[in-house]
Amino acid sequence: MMGVTAGIQSQLTMLIDLYQLTMAEGYWKLNKHEIPAVFALFFRTLPFGGGFAIACGLQAVIEAVSNFKFEQNDCEYLANLKTANGQALFDHSFLEALQKLKLTVDIFGIPEGTVVFSKEPLLRVQGPLWQCQLLETLLLNLINFPTLIATKAARVCLAAKGEPVIEFGLRRAQGIDGGLTASRAAYVGGVTSSSNVLAGFKYGIPIAGTHAHSWVMAFEDELEAFLAYAQVSPHNVILLVDTYDTINGIKNAIQVGKKLKNKGSQLLGIRLDSGNLAELSIKARQMLDEVGLKETKIVGSGDLDEYTIDQLKKEGAKIDIWGVGTRLVTGYDQPALGGVYKLMAIKGVDGKWQYKAKTTDDPHKKTIGGIHGVRRFSVENTFTRDVLYNLEKASPEPQENETVEDLLELIFHQGKLVYTPPKLSDIQLHTQSQLDKLPMALKQLKPEIQYIVVTPRPSPRKGGG
Amino acid sequence: MMGVTAGIQSQLTMLIDLYQLTMAEGYWKLNKHEIPAVFALFFRTLPFGGGFAIACGLQAVIEAVSNFKFEQNDCEYLANLKTANGQALFDHSFLEALQKLKLTVDIFGIPEGTVVFSKEPLLRVQGPLWQCQLLETLLLNLINFPTLIATKAARVCLAAKGEPVIEFGLRRAQGIDGGLTASRAAYVGGVTSSSNVLAGFKYGIPIAGTHAHSWVMAFEDELEAFLAYAQVSPHNVILLVDTYDTINGIKNAIQVGKKLKNKGSQLLGIRLDSGNLAELSIKARQMLDEVGLKETKIVGSGDLDEYTIDQLKKEGAKIDIWGVGTRLVTGYDQPALGGVYKLMAIKGVDGKWQYKAKTTDDPHKKTIGGIHGVRRFSVENTFTRDVLYNLEKASPEPQENETVEDLLELIFHQGKLVYTPPKLSDIQLHTQSQLDKLPMALKQLKPEIQYIVVTPRPSPRKGGG
Repeated sequence: MMGVTAGIQSQLTMLIDLYQLTMAEGYWKLNKHEIPAVFALFFRTLPFGGGFAIACGLQAVIEAVSNFKFEQNDCEYLANLKTANGQALFDHSFLEALQKLKLTVDIFGIPEGTVVFSKEPLLRVQGPLWQCQLLETLLLNLINFPTLIATKAARVCLAAKGEPVIEFGLRRAQGIDGGLTASRAAYVGGVTSSSNVLAGFKYGIPIAGTHAHSWVMAFEDELEAFLAYAQVSPHNVILLVDTYDTINGIKNAIQVGKKLKNKGSQLLGIRLDSGNLAELSIKARQMLDEVGLKETKIVGSGDLDEYTIDQLKKEGAKIDIWGVGTRLVTGYDQPALGGVYKLMAIKGVDGKWQYKAKTTDDPHKKTIGGIHGVRRFSVENTFTRDVLYNLEKASPEPQENETVEDLLELIFHQGKLVYTPPKLSDIQLHTQSQLDKLPMALKQLKPEIQYIVVTPRPSPRKGGG
Repeated sequence: MMGVTAGIQSQLTMLIDLYQLTMAEGYWKLNKHEIPAVFALFFRTLPFGGGFAIACGLQAVIEAVSNFKFEQNDCEYLANLKTANGQALFDHSFLEALQKLKLTVDIFGIPEGTVVFSKEPLLRVQGPLWQCQLLETLLLNLINFPTLIATKAARVCLAAKGEPVIEFGLRRAQGIDGGLTASRAAYVGGVTSSSNVLAGFKYGIPIAGTHAHSWVMAFEDELEAFLAYAQVSPHNVILLVDTYDTINGIKNAIQVGKKLKNKGSQLLGIRLDSGNLAELSIKARQMLDEVGLKETKIVGSGDLDEYTIDQLKKEGAKIDIWGVGTRLVTGYDQPALGGVYKLMAIKGVDGKWQYKAKTTDDPHKKTIGGIHGVRRFSVENTFTRDVLYNLEKASPEPQENETVEDLLELIFHQGKLVYTPPKLSDIQLHTQSQLDKLPMALKQLKPEIQYIVVTPRPSPRKGGG
């Protein structure tokens, strides 16, 4: 069970863009590397044109930061890198310093499963400049993807209106970890179970599955295949009915269902995986009900996502359980969250924080400097607005009828883990509770309103904002 | 260096959809598990609306299949799984058989870097039915994503018309392995280098990088930041000029370039990361040339892909090196290859192969049964057509002026690796050589013609065709 984590973790420190190392060396050579700095990790636009996102990935950050260490063989590799003209890219003494480095940063994070919005720091990292810089790529990689998929899963589950959603995207996921991390993030976002056995093993996620088309094709005919499946696995019979002709497949499944019923067992479900799922499910429900198989569930699958589920429901589809794969685990219609990690403040020689801002030509990419907290205001258990506020200034206070909550929690203090992560099943409950507090209008697939996030006004201090 | 591979590999056997295990148990209980079967892994539609794909992922398949083994703790986990009504999901004796299982399959594969088309088996797996079934999820996961990204990279490199392309997508990749596997696949597809240090370490890919916006923001002003960078890293100076105002950034970079030139060194490049890249690069080239910095390259980056590179070239952009991230490593406009793994034939009690076909309502999802080879015909070093042919029938023979090549090579024979994988740099050369032989019209981003792939006619044998 430790295999996957231990193996990857032992090298995650090297999962870094080269320029983080060249910059770190630069700061080190200039003796600027220990200057205290503040970085924020945030995204600029909510994914999928939606009204919210679900924070995810903090657990992976905790594991990676806890194990952050440049090993001897890492530094040997780096020592052999050359510039275009054949010089050693890194100084030997810098690599020695790198190998001795132990993190002393403070990391604040928003707990997994929390509803978040654009511009809000999901992580705030404070500490020596080079340490903050060396963490950038890893933190972005570990937060961007899970947050994207947890958000997608929450959207899919909202479209399914409380009906169970099974995630089975592993085969078309973006790599090994694209499958594993997606299964976990999808569970955080609200799916009921996954087909991914390793995700079950590693994270304790409920897993599910019965048979594929190949089972049906491995027998002389479909009815024989269904009967054989019911024989060998009588307590887990969900029959895939579309290998040859779906209506005929439903008829064959019904024959099996009747036999199981006579033996005191039952046909748990049939699965429709192609064709017009609305029409076929209505027809199937009618056929099943007519013979008294009212308990038999209908599972729908085949390139589903929140949009097709929503459409199928509008068409009156009689689907009880939704199987969602590729479009969930890849975030198909927007396969990357554009999270960034920006320098927000750096300590000047006078001991005061200098706020830092990027003021590029592209207005969308501008940042506002400062050391920001995120305070959420609620009225009667409904979120009303978030306020990003500068921790060096007065914090925004609630009105009489409002409650407030600061979203960022201290995760690492001076490099030491000080946070106890919740159980995964509790994170899923937290997501549900957060969504319950989000105004309904923001839970539409394409909402017409935006949640209010109040950002600090740019300050006139040196270096921009 | 072995950390990542060893760690992940030790558990890749459990990276499986649950239904593969329930089906395997079913075959085992029915004593059908040792029946010889043939499966093919193929995709139905070329990705990105393009004219070709680049096969990739075979190396990962080799590592995973070589280490395929259900361990004791895997089986202990499986033994604890329950059905909905609380029964043990798996029989104890099946799990014992699973733990003893050693693969004896033959696996044929198309070498990495080969140009491939829809319906062609990228892998053909032959052997005991349950073994073939247990490999399905893993093989799909390990082939789908790398093939998608190698194809995307080849398209990006074609759009760049031979100019260097640097991949730096790690921060927004789909997970740890989504970054690592993407960096390797992008290199197979033709990129020059990657920012991903672990990919350099693990695969020997050339790595590249200089500095980010945060470097500029960590100094009092931009010129000071540029001078400092040139001081600490004089042989690797590529300056990012868009942190505040791009034209002013170019002027500051030019000041540094002049100083470097006076010292006998040089400003290798400037990087434009936002704004109108066509206009800015034309202006930058003019400004650099005017002061004699004709050798200084212009690197362009910022949400680039094959479409934007093509457009920038049409607009006369003066960009020499292309930095491509998110849209490459996620296959942004189509983030999953729809590869499938289908039962093609199974041995009957008469010892003859029965061809198997899926004849679903959805015509796009129909399959043609049989044991298929892929033979490629060329005239004067140009590919003219591929023929999928049934190995039990006469093979298609070349005309006088044609040469032929069978694409599938034997990788595993009776479970033993019999193939020597090429070096990664040779795989990249193979990709280039393959693309050189592909008709130009098929290398357009949205080609108007299709490559000819001749498929066998459905046969009238039992079980479809």
